Amino acid sequence: MASTIENTKRAVVALKSIQNTDDLIDRIRHQQEPTPTPTPLEHAHSLEGVEKRRAFLRKISNQQLDYLTPSTSPENLNQLEGNIENFIGLTQIPTGVIGRLRIIGSAAKGDFYIPLATSEGALVASYHRGAKACLLSGGATSICLIEGVQRSPLFKFDNIADLGSFLIWVLDRLEKFREITAQTSRFARLLEMKTNIEGNHLILTFEYSTGDAAGQNMVTICTDVICKYMIEHAPVKPLMWFIEGNYSGDKKATLLSFTNVRGKKVTTEIRLSSEVIQNVLKTSPEAMAEYWRSSTIGAIQSGAIGAQGHYANGLAALFLATGQDVACISEAAVGITRMELTDCGGLYVSVTLPNLMIGTVGGGTSLPTQKECLQLMDCYGPGKAKKLAEICGALVLAGEISIAAALSAGHFSEAHQKFGRKK
Amino acid sequence: MASTIENTKRAVVALKSIQNTDDLIDRIRHQQEPTPTPTPLEHAHSLEGVEKRRAFLRKISNQQLDYLTPSTSPENLNQLEGNIENFIGLTQIPTGVIGRLRIIGSAAKGDFYIPLATSEGALVASYHRGAKACLLSGGATSICLIEGVQRSPLFKFDNIADLGSFLIWVLDRLEKFREITAQTSRFARLLEMKTNIEGNHLILTFEYSTGDAAGQNMVTICTDVICKYMIEHAPVKPLMWFIEGNYSGDKKATLLSFTNVRGKKVTTEIRLSSEVIQNVLKTSPEAMAEYWRSSTIGAIQSGAIGAQGHYANGLAALFLATGQDVACISEAAVGITRMELTDCGGLYVSVTLPNLMIGTVGGGTSLPTQKECLQLMDCYGPGKAKKLAEICGALVLAGEISIAAALSAGHFSEAHQKFGRKK
Amino acid sequence: MASTIENTKRAVVALKSIQNTDDLIDRIRHQQEPTPTPTPLEHAHSLEGVEKRRAFLRKISNQQLDYLTPSTSPENLNQLEGNIENFIGLTQIPTGVIGRLRIIGSAAKGDFYIPLATSEGALVASYHRGAKACLLSGGATSICLIEGVQRSPLFKFDNIADLGSFLIWVLDRLEKFREITAQTSRFARLLEMKTNIEGNHLILTFEYSTGDAAGQNMVTICTDVICKYMIEHAPVKPLMWFIEGNYSGDKKATLLSFTNVRGKKVTTEIRLSSEVIQNVLKTSPEAMAEYWRSSTIGAIQSGAIGAQGHYANGLAALFLATGQDVACISEAAVGITRMELTDCGGLYVSVTLPNLMIGTVGGGTSLPTQKECLQLMDCYGPGKAKKLAEICGALVLAGEISIAAALSAGHFSEAHQKFGRKK
Amino acid sequence: MASTIENTKRAVVALKSIQNTDDLIDRIRHQQEPTPTPTPLEHAHSLEGVEKRRAFLRKISNQQLDYLTPSTSPENLNQLEGNIENFIGLTQIPTGVIGRLRIIGSAAKGDFYIPLATSEGALVASYHRGAKACLLSGGATSICLIEGVQRSPLFKFDNIADLGSFLIWVLDRLEKFREITAQTSRFARLLEMKTNIEGNHLILTFEYSTGDAAGQNMVTICTDVICKYMIEHAPVKPLMWFIEGNYSGDKKATLLSFTNVRGKKVTTEIRLSSEVIQNVLKTSPEAMAEYWRSSTIGAIQSGAIGAQGHYANGLAALFLATGQDVACISEAAVGITRMELTDCGGLYVSVTLPNLMIGTVGGGTSLPTQKECLQLMDCYGPGKAKKLAEICGALVLAGEISIAAALSAGHFSEAHQKFGRKK
Repeated sequence: MASTIENTKRAVVALKSIQNTDDLIDRIRHQQEPTPTPTPLEHAHSLEGVEKRRAFLRKISNQQLDYLTPSTSPENLNQLEGNIENFIGLTQIPTGVIGRLRIIGSAAKGDFYIPLATSEGALVASYHRGAKACLLSGGATSICLIEGVQRSPLFKFDNIADLGSFLIWVLDRLEKFREITAQTSRFARLLEMKTNIEGNHLILTFEYSTGDAAGQNMVTICTDVICKYMIEHAPVKPLMWFIEGNYSGDKKATLLSFTNVRGKKVTTEIRLSSEVIQNVLKTSPEAMAEYWRSSTIGAIQSGAIGAQGHYANGLAALFLATGQDVACISEAAVGITRMELTDCGGLYVSVTLPNLMIGTVGGGTSLPTQKECLQLMDCYGPGKAKKLAEICGALVLAGEISIAAALSAGHFSEAHQKFGRKK
Repeated sequence: MASTIENTKRAVVALKSIQNTDDLIDRIRHQQEPTPTPTPLEHAHSLEGVEKRRAFLRKISNQQLDYLTPSTSPENLNQLEGNIENFIGLTQIPTGVIGRLRIIGSAAKGDFYIPLATSEGALVASYHRGAKACLLSGGATSICLIEGVQRSPLFKFDNIADLGSFLIWVLDRLEKFREITAQTSRFARLLEMKTNIEGNHLILTFEYSTGDAAGQNMVTICTDVICKYMIEHAPVKPLMWFIEGNYSGDKKATLLSFTNVRGKKVTTEIRLSSEVIQNVLKTSPEAMAEYWRSSTIGAIQSGAIGAQGHYANGLAALFLATGQDVACISEAAVGITRMELTDCGGLYVSVTLPNLMIGTVGGGTSLPTQKECLQLMDCYGPGKAKKLAEICGALVLAGEISIAAALSAGHFSEAHQKFGRKK
Repeated sequence: MASTIENTKRAVVALKSIQNTDDLIDRIRHQQEPTPTPTPLEHAHSLEGVEKRRAFLRKISNQQLDYLTPSTSPENLNQLEGNIENFIGLTQIPTGVIGRLRIIGSAAKGDFYIPLATSEGALVASYHRGAKACLLSGGATSICLIEGVQRSPLFKFDNIADLGSFLIWVLDRLEKFREITAQTSRFARLLEMKTNIEGNHLILTFEYSTGDAAGQNMVTICTDVICKYMIEHAPVKPLMWFIEGNYSGDKKATLLSFTNVRGKKVTTEIRLSSEVIQNVLKTSPEAMAEYWRSSTIGAIQSGAIGAQGHYANGLAALFLATGQDVACISEAAVGITRMELTDCGGLYVSVTLPNLMIGTVGGGTSLPTQKECLQLMDCYGPGKAKKLAEICGALVLAGEISIAAALSAGHFSEAHQKFGRKK
Repeated sequence: MASTIENTKRAVVALKSIQNTDDLIDRIRHQQEPTPTPTPLEHAHSLEGVEKRRAFLRKISNQQLDYLTPSTSPENLNQLEGNIENFIGLTQIPTGVIGRLRIIGSAAKGDFYIPLATSEGALVASYHRGAKACLLSGGATSICLIEGVQRSPLFKFDNIADLGSFLIWVLDRLEKFREITAQTSRFARLLEMKTNIEGNHLILTFEYSTGDAAGQNMVTICTDVICKYMIEHAPVKPLMWFIEGNYSGDKKATLLSFTNVRGKKVTTEIRLSSEVIQNVLKTSPEAMAEYWRSSTIGAIQSGAIGAQGHYANGLAALFLATGQDVACISEAAVGITRMELTDCGGLYVSVTLPNLMIGTVGGGTSLPTQKECLQLMDCYGPGKAKKLAEICGALVLAGEISIAAALSAGHFSEAHQKFGRKK
């Protein structure tokens, strides 16, 4: 609980440094008067706007920005519309490939080479090793089970009785909300509406399917139109309302994961033979099963949501390479890994990811390198989102296998010494 | 709890598609015999290795990979060592800038322009707006309070009595472990060792300071040497041990956040005047305070860890631009936001981030664009990590202010329609 | 995280004491040979059985057991059947009363005197004070919103495909399961079946209404019959199955609370006037609202489920007095308290309890004192469970008001000094 | 997430019933004017006061209260001081006994008969069976590892800089706080002070040892004196402060459990032989290990804190019988159960309870039946609290063994049909 005296004393050093900040504040204030900020949003994607911003930054930072270049022709700048404001250049992330990873899915069928963008040494090598173990074991079964993206507007009433009147009116209008959704978006379909009453607060959770887009904007816009319709027509009005009550789990790990889908839910399994575990992973099924049992108890005691090793590593790298919203790693990197000895001396491994917010259209998927990476897996465009989800499941499975093997065999530290350090 | 009948019926469609997978499996197996995978780790960073992999991918995917180019001279390929394996090119992420953001910190003092890499429209514009509100309110106080990175090896014994004998021996050797740490790493310093006993499981948590590196590899390597020393010398040995018992919180959101530091803990605060809130944020202090109260209750009910809006957005974008480990968003994007009316009619806002895993040396910080982005903020190299942490705090504060304003004023949906969509 | 060195050293003392337990173990073993235990379950409720056990305990403990008497006539012993085994006497718990507490509910309407059994000084006085504040503010609105009790059997299959085949078969048989339920229990009604797939694990959650009984046994028995029917008739069988996969939340706090009902969900609200807060509670609305805001952030940081003060106190005392299953306090004492200033200078307070496992028939409700306490509130027997739930909500509200007042005014310590100590 | 439409429609019935409550409210108000409540706190423990309250309740409820009698002589009423207010009688709870349970602990050594007060059929029988399995396996090792009880006052400042000044002053005064503690209480000893900074909020957690008392009142009173000293002497004052910031985990399940002790932390283990499992528990080690693995995953998905079966059942029954604070079940019933096959074909089982708030002096321990039950185990009075804690661990172990056996063997439903129903 909290930090001990010794730790706190270290904090005090920093706290002391702001005890007499009056001087500092005065100095900052006088030197630099608050003025309209010089990085205007206007002309966001014109060559002129970009150059103006870059010139300004060069001047104030005394740097050339040689690498962080737009590296794209003027006409291509327009492509960035909808993806970035105040554009100044392109961050470049090293990208490797793993595979082939064999997948037996409902949408992903066959062998895949998977691009991973990361600057963390050993990550690609580790997932690659896991993929090899999967391939040699006949492939992973990976199923995208269900889909749904939510917005959870919150309505505040004078009292519970008013809340009740509003809710009674709302409950009869689900079909109307479905119509509104259909009129507002070509892709969104309203699946369900759920209610949560807490005192005079009503949260309505609208759950949509969003086609092959990740869909957060789509569901925001549809829900906004639905809410405005409610506010206009309901006989009893809320005192106030917000389009999101911080209840949908957007951009954060929550325990809704296991009682609900968010984005796509995928479950993936494999049986590894004892030989593959010995030859490829350099450990034994028993050691891996033991590690899983022990580490699951560790995870529970740490207060983690779910129990898994490092979903975040593989997912972040794939999300980056393929133009997904990397901030969604906060919610996507939650799940359950399971490892158990099989009757015939091998190892059963499964991963379950209930929160995959991904898409193959929209977002960053059309950006140049991102589109290429999606195409490497034949995952670009409409009709491919479930396939990408099943690939995510198999990728994460490969990663869990590899890290559990390394940790159970005592190779974890060596791998990081070998791949994770500059020589 | 779980999915309802209707949802489940949708899952059944996917499940049915794998009911008769025997054919599929046979077909995959016969077409493509498991062979050594063709993406060799050898020559990882030679031009020859890269070209071999790219040629192979071009062939199998029938694509040119025009954008995902190495775009770096042969000699620079070596720079990638320690960052990537199976390298095939550079993923390019649109990067914008916000600012100036005024910070009154213990290490970060002054006005900052902050680069953000993202493909999510509206993100940069929203953080920029928050930064403007902060600037016009005199700047944010941001303090990096404490630091510490952990490894939590798990030791399993025959019984509790054996565990006790081992622990008694270990407790007297903290100084020895400090020596080992000093001999193993130039930067790591062993701060503390904590114990957790659960039946015959002993978890020892070693907490280090890691200089200006994020430090996960460093603490892994030091802990490995310490553990091997224990195993060699302790009078009673564990039956088995693992370098990490999945208890340190590495790459996942855990509740340890609020009882412990992981990486760096930063707290940041500001008082926004009513005028700034009205002019810049187009809402009122009352509406923002009300939104915060309501949405905090929403977050609690969702089973989130902490209560905040969208730390993940700003942090992921800054982590990407500056070569941090983006997978750490899973742990870093946890914290507490607070908004309260002040006596004089303004709004007090604070954010607290207990889990910032960041560095200004090592990892991806020396990669070309990443280094430039760090230099934009004078945050590259030794002695800068606390400064970067305090910038993270202020950035996140700006983002929380902006989203809470949008949600309380009903502008959230419009902003995403304006910035987040292709025209 | 875990305990620090200093704490651990204290643990070592205990650990040392079992280092040489061989002697101890030998001694225990030789003195007392494992024999059939002398507290037979047979004749559980015969006078002879009771006296035999009491005589035995008197002998081995050298005590008279004067107070822990059966204090009930021989014929009444049979009443205990279904409530206790190995009966030796009656534990006696001091019981007080609070009220009147005015409730405006859907089932509970009017003023109530509520019996509370506890040995914790200050508890009754504190709830009584809260009740008085509620009465003088016109009464609390308390609504029992929804009901449902779950069993969550877990089925384990060879692989996901087999799981799919089983699930497809199951999904078409909900009506059959409803029939089975109707044939198995007079009171249980199967409301819903939900599914959770995790690798080759399938959890089916059966949610029932259970009339006016708490209903855990009822839903266990019905689900058992349903599962046996499945196992007998399904074309694909699980490798194994368990009647409860530790997923229903039975006897533990879980985050399912806020996404689900367990037992009964009640929400209760009141508006306290500034005068009542000053006169009865000796504090101000502002101080209470401030305390609520601050303490909610404290609760979040502690990793609590929900955010409330001390639901456990009032609920445990009422559960005890009225023959409820007190172990269910672990799940029932979870919820959300909210306190906010009103426009007219008073305080809005609400409590929401999503997990009330209670009944007015079955369990301990027919035991002599328990029945009397239920009758005091006209809550004994069929048709009264919702009423009791709404009383629970109002009771908890009174308790939250009183403790928040004490903590905000600085009287908390004094109250415990006054009421909680022997003179 | 939240309830579905169908569930919600059920809620609407209740909500509708309060749509027109104006009449109801009027009626209640006019019939019964808010008057000083007729259950006065004065003369709390005089015979006259008790009889006055009982007479009043008899009249308004039209009941005799034959069973809920004081059943104690006038002079004994004084004994209740410090335990109850508004006393009206004694609730009577059926009490059984299990054992003998063999314990090899640091304080509890030998065979024990354990009294359990409950009205839940099958509970005593189930724990008794588990105790028998433990006895026949040579006894359970049970160790009370560490102790500590906390209060977490929260201080709110104008800004972080003020907070820093206050904290710097506080950190140098730990010895003074220890002195204050020693002057305030004979039993409390201040062990540690930890800090948690969140914006302008400072939480100081004071951790005490409390001798053989549970100690909540003791630590409240000591912390109150310390805080008042701070407020008087610190150079910078907080704007406001509260004796408890809802952060100590008092009366609620929190995730602090596994990173901290609260009350006493006990870990208990046993190795069950295959024969005992077959003969006593009617199942196999393999089935129990499999059940444990599956159900742990279930617990994780339910968002439970820790992973265990039904600690609440045994602990609530023992707490009741022995005069503990039953509301603390909310925190005590959290822990980790582990079951694993041993190399020699048996089963290793451990339980870990980090949050045992118990005492053998103070609270309800001196009440007549409670004292007798403590004496049955030689656990009454000073020097016995650790012993009682180790008994709690062994009791819980017996209960986990028995329920896991029942669930893995499919006997769970039958046991409840046999013991849990009136015939």
